[in-house]
Amino acid sequence: MKIEVCMSPDLLPHYDAGGKCVVVIDVLRATSCMVTALAHGIEAIIPVKEIAECRQWQQKGLLAAGERNGQKVEGFDLDNSPFSYMQEALKGQTIAVTTTNGTTAIEAAKGKAAHILVGAFLNKSAVIDALRRFKKDVLLLCAGWKGRVNMEDTLFAGAIVAGMPEAYIEDDAALIAADLYRLHRHNKMEIMHHCSHVQRLKRLGIEKDIDFCLQEDVYQVVPVLQEDRLVPLAAHTASISQL
Amino acid sequence: MKIEVCMSPDLLPHYDAGGKCVVVIDVLRATSCMVTALAHGIEAIIPVKEIAECRQWQQKGLLAAGERNGQKVEGFDLDNSPFSYMQEALKGQTIAVTTTNGTTAIEAAKGKAAHILVGAFLNKSAVIDALRRFKKDVLLLCAGWKGRVNMEDTLFAGAIVAGMPEAYIEDDAALIAADLYRLHRHNKMEIMHHCSHVQRLKRLGIEKDIDFCLQEDVYQVVPVLQEDRLVPLAAHTASISQL
Repeated sequence: MKIEVCMSPDLLPHYDAGGKCVVVIDVLRATSCMVTALAHGIEAIIPVKEIAECRQWQQKGLLAAGERNGQKVEGFDLDNSPFSYMQEALKGQTIAVTTTNGTTAIEAAKGKAAHILVGAFLNKSAVIDALRRFKKDVLLLCAGWKGRVNMEDTLFAGAIVAGMPEAYIEDDAALIAADLYRLHRHNKMEIMHHCSHVQRLKRLGIEKDIDFCLQEDVYQVVPVLQEDRLVPLAAHTASISQL
Repeated sequence: MKIEVCMSPDLLPHYDAGGKCVVVIDVLRATSCMVTALAHGIEAIIPVKEIAECRQWQQKGLLAAGERNGQKVEGFDLDNSPFSYMQEALKGQTIAVTTTNGTTAIEAAKGKAAHILVGAFLNKSAVIDALRRFKKDVLLLCAGWKGRVNMEDTLFAGAIVAGMPEAYIEDDAALIAADLYRLHRHNKMEIMHHCSHVQRLKRLGIEKDIDFCLQEDVYQVVPVLQEDRLVPLAAHTASISQL
């Protein structure tokens, strides 16, 4: 099993997702929200790239969620805070979601990958378990920040690499990410305070979200893309035929 | 003074090089060769993107140097080993150089930057001194490996960031690079042995080049782009008007 880290969707053309398990990573906050949502009983999430497409789903009766530059899109039902997805009233619902970086990364991975999973610190060990069950090469795709590399997604990619010592590290980005995680695993919050993205988010008053999203192994659910939507990966699923 | 790290030329569209000092980094081996060449009395280096352009300069009487995938281009005078540039016979000569990643990075930076400098571990402290004299925002541009992030260029970018604690770190990539350098500054050789690029180079039998290129502060020269060629930056140059 080989493992690679693509630090920005802009670098994806240099990677071959063909036949691999791709893990989409946007820790602050898109993929953390997705994990939280499915963990709290939301049935499915439709990730879409454009706000307009999200509105179309809303007109068809789904809930619309999403942000641009960290703030809720006007007229949408839900923002990009994990706490918004913990409501009893949302259980069983399907939500269409668009975010600045996260859904763009999912779009970029569609087509060639064998499986597309969604990862965050919140479901770290569950993602590792799923990757071990699938037994395919792994491509960790960081959403980054508007095309640039960011700390939190690189750290999480490193957590997966460091958590799978049996995997063959295929590229330097995976080595760099794993080093970074080993260096900061016990002071994630402290290092994140120096980061550009966190400083941006703090200006929006969402420190509580950041603290929540940096917690490891809160949930066991792994969102997996089936056709156009993310649903919980069934426990013990070992191959695509069982999806 | 702000400092940023662009980990791959493919990410350059997300950075604004305008008015900045751009340092082009391709430690193994393009920028290490350029530093070595100017340190050993070669008068100027013309970096070109294409092999054909390099041949044209050769036909005009210059020496042609360059590699593709780590091996010397057929018919060229010099390869991409720093030891090739230490010959007495080359003193005062001008060389046209093309490499897989390094000259591509220089091309990508041309146009908007205030100054384009060439950096490698070999001239690390001289680069830092030059950046301090220029007093402009700094963009460290890693050549990477065929568009991907690589260890050695990220490490060197981190050496510059860590060496300029007075600079304001503008992006997460700069934080990541500096962390990586602080982690590995005393075991560069050891960590490099795990890297994909080094494993590739070892297959070409050039461990000696790698050891040489990872040494810090062997030379004081800083190559700077003037029109189409790299020449040694004059010591104590403080502004473009003195170039």
